[in-house]
Amino acid sequence: MNTVEIIKKKRNGGKLNKDEINFLIAGYLAGTITDYQISSFLMAVYFRGMDDEETLNLTDLMLHSGDIIDLKSINGVKTDKHSTGGVGDKTSLILAPQVASLGVFVPMISGRGLGHTGGTLDKLESIPGFRINMNEDEYISTLKKVGCVMIGQTDRLAPADKKFYALRDVTATVDSIPLITSSILSKKLAEGAEALVFDVKIGSGANLQDENQSVELAKKLVTVSRKFGKKAIAVLTDMKEPLGCKIGNWLEVEECIELMKGKKVNDLLKVNNVLAGAMLYLSGKAKNIDEGEIIAQQAIDDGSVYGKFLEMVRAHGGDTEYIQDYSNLKRAKFSRSLISGKTGFVNEMDAFGFGMASVELGAGRKKADDDVLPLPGIILNKKCGDEVKRGESVCELFSEDEEKLKYALGYLSNAVRIDDELKFSKKLIIDILD
Amino acid sequence: MNTVEIIKKKRNGGKLNKDEINFLIAGYLAGTITDYQISSFLMAVYFRGMDDEETLNLTDLMLHSGDIIDLKSINGVKTDKHSTGGVGDKTSLILAPQVASLGVFVPMISGRGLGHTGGTLDKLESIPGFRINMNEDEYISTLKKVGCVMIGQTDRLAPADKKFYALRDVTATVDSIPLITSSILSKKLAEGAEALVFDVKIGSGANLQDENQSVELAKKLVTVSRKFGKKAIAVLTDMKEPLGCKIGNWLEVEECIELMKGKKVNDLLKVNNVLAGAMLYLSGKAKNIDEGEIIAQQAIDDGSVYGKFLEMVRAHGGDTEYIQDYSNLKRAKFSRSLISGKTGFVNEMDAFGFGMASVELGAGRKKADDDVLPLPGIILNKKCGDEVKRGESVCELFSEDEEKLKYALGYLSNAVRIDDELKFSKKLIIDILD
Repeated sequence: MNTVEIIKKKRNGGKLNKDEINFLIAGYLAGTITDYQISSFLMAVYFRGMDDEETLNLTDLMLHSGDIIDLKSINGVKTDKHSTGGVGDKTSLILAPQVASLGVFVPMISGRGLGHTGGTLDKLESIPGFRINMNEDEYISTLKKVGCVMIGQTDRLAPADKKFYALRDVTATVDSIPLITSSILSKKLAEGAEALVFDVKIGSGANLQDENQSVELAKKLVTVSRKFGKKAIAVLTDMKEPLGCKIGNWLEVEECIELMKGKKVNDLLKVNNVLAGAMLYLSGKAKNIDEGEIIAQQAIDDGSVYGKFLEMVRAHGGDTEYIQDYSNLKRAKFSRSLISGKTGFVNEMDAFGFGMASVELGAGRKKADDDVLPLPGIILNKKCGDEVKRGESVCELFSEDEEKLKYALGYLSNAVRIDDELKFSKKLIIDILD
Repeated sequence: MNTVEIIKKKRNGGKLNKDEINFLIAGYLAGTITDYQISSFLMAVYFRGMDDEETLNLTDLMLHSGDIIDLKSINGVKTDKHSTGGVGDKTSLILAPQVASLGVFVPMISGRGLGHTGGTLDKLESIPGFRINMNEDEYISTLKKVGCVMIGQTDRLAPADKKFYALRDVTATVDSIPLITSSILSKKLAEGAEALVFDVKIGSGANLQDENQSVELAKKLVTVSRKFGKKAIAVLTDMKEPLGCKIGNWLEVEECIELMKGKKVNDLLKVNNVLAGAMLYLSGKAKNIDEGEIIAQQAIDDGSVYGKFLEMVRAHGGDTEYIQDYSNLKRAKFSRSLISGKTGFVNEMDAFGFGMASVELGAGRKKADDDVLPLPGIILNKKCGDEVKRGESVCELFSEDEEKLKYALGYLSNAVRIDDELKFSKKLIIDILD
């Protein structure tokens, strides 16, 4: 077999068989095939795509490039959720303890934020002491003891994906459906879950800007997961405006705590509970997603979700005193409000703009090796559809660097649209593929 | 400016401005932009193409990455020819002395063979002593003295192209019209010619397999050359069957000598003289291409072309005794004929198959760093359209390694088609873009 001929076959629209895909991946990991050959291959895949069988084979090879965690020693269903990434999207922090509190094991391997979207690991690390690194034994024992566990990708899980992802990031080949699918699934299949719920975001704050592509990705995730013998559901959710009212690492943890303690953050609560309902349904704990939603809300109401959350934080070495201490508000040093210049209705709060502003404030990273800070971020005082008076604060920005407030306000001035009339309507749950 | 954003812009079908193209090329040469970023960019260009202005800018930047030879010290028109490459395509060896013998300076920088197509430099080096390396001073003084000169690309001419070409070769991004155009022109413009004739091959033995792409390439070469202030003509010629009757490095030199000494090799002579006619027309030595053809033939007939050829070989250090000595035939050690199994008409001699067989015999290279031998090759005893009797030799194969004859015959058995009826017709000169 010949590397150039395989690249050319894909470039010309051909379908690669498993041996050909394996030749590329094994060669790349062994160092006999170069970065520059793989990157031209990835660009060819961007243009030509891969059918379900090719995507399955690619995923399978990436999965088997590393360890596959065996959770057979744990009696019970293991179910996980994956989100394609959004702004203010913090459901993982609620879902894991929520579903675990209902007797389902949630083995969750998460990622960091990049670009305008946040990452679960960055949020968890805003809790002092919280360790997101565990070896496989500790991962299994924590899962067994607590019912849920949230760690970062280890070097031993899907190392091929790690190498591919780093290359895609610098060669403009990130947003390809088969490449995204195999990247997500090779990690999710390695962590040991038996059922998977995918939250596929649609709108300006999503990673895929085109709605049709998001729908295609959702279908591919479900189809390929099932080919691996996993139960799978995809929920297509809105990401035109940020989810919930808080953006930023600690701010999002705080909003999750508030929600778990009973605060009604409408859009966040709805999306969260539909996902929880889908996880419970796939785990055999509910007859359907609707019933799952009701059960999930009850677990919030009776305090068991928050209790499980504290238990998980403690198991990860996190400081639960810090979480429970509201005597002083944890806020970055400098803040500034975006003030409405007119009276009217908020018709747009562009999620992409809010995400970029939040990166600018210090909550996210532009490059993979940038540092992030715990406290910077944005609190939304208004959401789309709300009435606003001239002089009222639409949102408040927080940063440890006063200069950055200005730049971030620049992003937001184009992201917020206020009109005389209410022109806003949205569907929060766009579709469910089950 | 940001490398990933520029790649993404091209990937999404955008048009790059000169600054963006320069950022990539200068960065690549300086080592701040990596191979793997350039290769994904090249694959994006393969799919999205480049318009005339982008191609002009890319060519200009590649051209200015090195020296541009100044031929102002030579009084007279300087005209060159470039072929996109074929099988048995040996016209450069005739054209340079032919046009030079008529008072036009021919500064020719040629390439080596790769894949199924041969290369002028390999053919020249089959003449003992012939030096294809000269520095720029020697290049100019030889051109001034002899009227023509034929050398290889030096490290100082279009170094960016050299680096790009090496990368394209291993990343399946060779056959892209704007990349081929900028690669050809950056070298041709660096060598100092004022007028350029392009021989764009069409058919299985051409480098571009698709006829429409060849036509597009011809147009692009002419358009971009003219944007650089050069006179330009493209001649589209047939490459369904090999050109002439001999394939292989020395065998092709031999056929050129035979032709220059008066032998009528019909297809080779016609293509050669049309190209010579176009060069003479662009140089102001003929009123039109037709008149140029007649003048070119006269120069063969009166012996001045062969005389100029010997003068050029001598100036390059080549052994003219060797050339003129026919007392023993220069042939590889082993030979074998392809015998016709039936009586009928030769309707196909697939140029690609003959090219690959010739590589197999030792005349060409599969990889850029393979060695080639002077004597292996193929002599065609029949051409398309000829009648053949059962048991007659269609062609004879030569190799220094007896084993290789078998493999090469395997290629040829599928490349030759003999039918009861004559079904063959072809247009040798398909079109002329002037």
